[in-house]
Amino acid sequence: MAEKPRIVIVGAGFGGMKLAELLAKEDVSVTIIDRHNFTLFQPLLYQVSTSMLSTDEIAYPIRAAFRKYPNVELFMAKAQGVDQERKVVLTNHGEVPYDYVVLAAGATTNFFGMKNLEEHCFAMKSLQEALHIRNHVLHMFERAEKHQDDEEMRRRMLTFVIVGGGPTGIEEAGAIVELIGIQKKELHNLDFSEVSVKLIEATPHVLPMMAENLREYAVNVLKKKGVDVMLSTQVVDYDGDNLKLKDGTVIPTRTVIWAAGVKAVPFIANCGGEVDRAGRIIVEENLLAKGSDSLFAIGDCASFCHGTERPLPTVAPVATQGAEVAYRNIMKKIRGDENLESFHYVDHGAMATIGRGEAVVNKTSLNPQLTGFIAWCAWMFVHLARLTSTHTKLTVAIKWGWNLLSGIRLGRIITNIKLGEE
Amino acid sequence: MAEKPRIVIVGAGFGGMKLAELLAKEDVSVTIIDRHNFTLFQPLLYQVSTSMLSTDEIAYPIRAAFRKYPNVELFMAKAQGVDQERKVVLTNHGEVPYDYVVLAAGATTNFFGMKNLEEHCFAMKSLQEALHIRNHVLHMFERAEKHQDDEEMRRRMLTFVIVGGGPTGIEEAGAIVELIGIQKKELHNLDFSEVSVKLIEATPHVLPMMAENLREYAVNVLKKKGVDVMLSTQVVDYDGDNLKLKDGTVIPTRTVIWAAGVKAVPFIANCGGEVDRAGRIIVEENLLAKGSDSLFAIGDCASFCHGTERPLPTVAPVATQGAEVAYRNIMKKIRGDENLESFHYVDHGAMATIGRGEAVVNKTSLNPQLTGFIAWCAWMFVHLARLTSTHTKLTVAIKWGWNLLSGIRLGRIITNIKLGEE
Repeated sequence: MAEKPRIVIVGAGFGGMKLAELLAKEDVSVTIIDRHNFTLFQPLLYQVSTSMLSTDEIAYPIRAAFRKYPNVELFMAKAQGVDQERKVVLTNHGEVPYDYVVLAAGATTNFFGMKNLEEHCFAMKSLQEALHIRNHVLHMFERAEKHQDDEEMRRRMLTFVIVGGGPTGIEEAGAIVELIGIQKKELHNLDFSEVSVKLIEATPHVLPMMAENLREYAVNVLKKKGVDVMLSTQVVDYDGDNLKLKDGTVIPTRTVIWAAGVKAVPFIANCGGEVDRAGRIIVEENLLAKGSDSLFAIGDCASFCHGTERPLPTVAPVATQGAEVAYRNIMKKIRGDENLESFHYVDHGAMATIGRGEAVVNKTSLNPQLTGFIAWCAWMFVHLARLTSTHTKLTVAIKWGWNLLSGIRLGRIITNIKLGEE
Repeated sequence: MAEKPRIVIVGAGFGGMKLAELLAKEDVSVTIIDRHNFTLFQPLLYQVSTSMLSTDEIAYPIRAAFRKYPNVELFMAKAQGVDQERKVVLTNHGEVPYDYVVLAAGATTNFFGMKNLEEHCFAMKSLQEALHIRNHVLHMFERAEKHQDDEEMRRRMLTFVIVGGGPTGIEEAGAIVELIGIQKKELHNLDFSEVSVKLIEATPHVLPMMAENLREYAVNVLKKKGVDVMLSTQVVDYDGDNLKLKDGTVIPTRTVIWAAGVKAVPFIANCGGEVDRAGRIIVEENLLAKGSDSLFAIGDCASFCHGTERPLPTVAPVATQGAEVAYRNIMKKIRGDENLESFHYVDHGAMATIGRGEAVVNKTSLNPQLTGFIAWCAWMFVHLARLTSTHTKLTVAIKWGWNLLSGIRLGRIITNIKLGEE
């Protein structure tokens, strides 16, 4: 009996999960390698960081998705590279052999080499990082209240800075402002005029993928909600207490959330392929890594520059559409058909929420643009539809509905504090 | 203007929260001191540890309960003692002055001085401890699957021991067995005959507060579900790999959950009162600490021995009923009335679940005994009714209903793993 072709997928994000689901039904053996035992719904990470959703609601156990498919296995480990000669993926738990490997390992935060920022800022790409932000932000309020005779300290603790005007930065800023509104009702001894939220963006615009009028709309909504939007502003240094801008301004703050850039996870450079400036592996039109006939890459860790000036954006649809092409090309190769399909990304539009009841939606198939409550409803509908389980759709829908009506956020619990060490 | 009487409550458990809610409506100033910013629904902690519920569902922000009462404040800090002379509570964030103080600080795990057990066992009294158990248990399955050629190691990783046959131990054992049933459907390469769950109890009986027939019923249900129930068995040592029993037996296991005893939190000994063997402060019938006229104690940290041979049990109703008496006695003292009320605990019965659809209920006002599905429904109803918010009642009810129908547990996500350090 000939062994089934072994396909290894590195990373269980949108792309990796989609690919595994497609391959599960074929007569192949699939191994998913991931550091975690869950797939993360990254677009809602900001809602965990701002106490709206629970971790379980945006994290879904990988194995649960393949309960009916014994040909799909999880190998929980940290990928460290690929040895293309020997056809093995290197991990901290040993080597995993493959016939075809697909890198779908996603991206991590890019601090562009600024060590101080990397050390002191909060990143928000993992579940743990989101929880870390939640714990820290809530804790700042508790601590500020104890400094009744030190206004400087209070203001430093109550200044929340988000760097990066992309969807993540916008959504985080909007959600933090609303969280503050809830805190205001409950911290009776704190002067909330001392609280501020600043959104810093290096370019003159937020939401680069959106039309000009939507960008302006978003900035106006943020300002109306109380966010201090600072465009064309560059951050140069941060020591955990003072954030320094290029023009010399110093912002005293204990909280800087960095949402200003991503790069491929570092092990991608150790996979035997050519990488671009953001560490992404350069792929051909058929999604095979340049020069390889068995290593594919999709999503945020792939650099796809065919027919586009810049690599494709790091968003979920690029990964899932890539997964479909990678799937068909792998099956072709297994069948001995070398006439591989080329990947053509279809952009269905972009959306971002700006807190409760507000969003902007650009270039959808239904309507070219949406703003306000109707856009927020569209955003909610799309995100609920994409959540993995019916059960989660239900509890998340209840939470959002409840929050819309009552403004309540029950996730405001501080876990993992080390009181002795403050 | 005379200042309002200052009442400090140490601990935001069932007793502390109840007391604060009663005092909130009076013309007094209330400060709650707690290490956490949430009140924990401890009876459901085992459901967090076994991936059924999310942390947010059993933890409720303290401040949210007193939104409408600016006379109630949270002081998030670790209590370290009480100076009765100077009438201040000592904390790691400084002193908090009081006119009346109520110790409602609850209990912690009691290892009865066995250092090795304390170091290597899992306790389950805090939210972090429950999450720690969840992460560890799920991780054991992932790791065991990687040891395909080492049966001894696999069995050690797949043996889960719970020590203590009280409600917590019973409920944890039942829930772990069911969790294993779910894992079985998803870990296709693991031989589940190697998995075992053991419940160890030092006395000849489980559930000491229940009638004999209910104890037997519970043991039979556990056995039927696959738990190895070991009665009259004493644990003497554990090094993280091998659990040693008094009769010399060694159980190779990586997981020992200790639910065999509680004691008062240690700072209680530093409050200027007399304490019993379990570290609880001895109180008079009026709940004032022996010899004090301003320090009350209620719940698990109080030793109340009036009209009973042994101190009252460490259960929520003792704390909430105590809170009502403490409330009335404080208000009497404020009014100058020294004719204080005596506390009389009314026992409404006990209940414990043994996994999905099974429970035992003893001595309720409705019916003297219940078992099986009807008992489980009663248990579910009582616990849902006691959860703090309507919103949580709703999401928890959905989870329980969903689990009953489909056996799904979506909380099986491993957070906080340090893969490099395994």
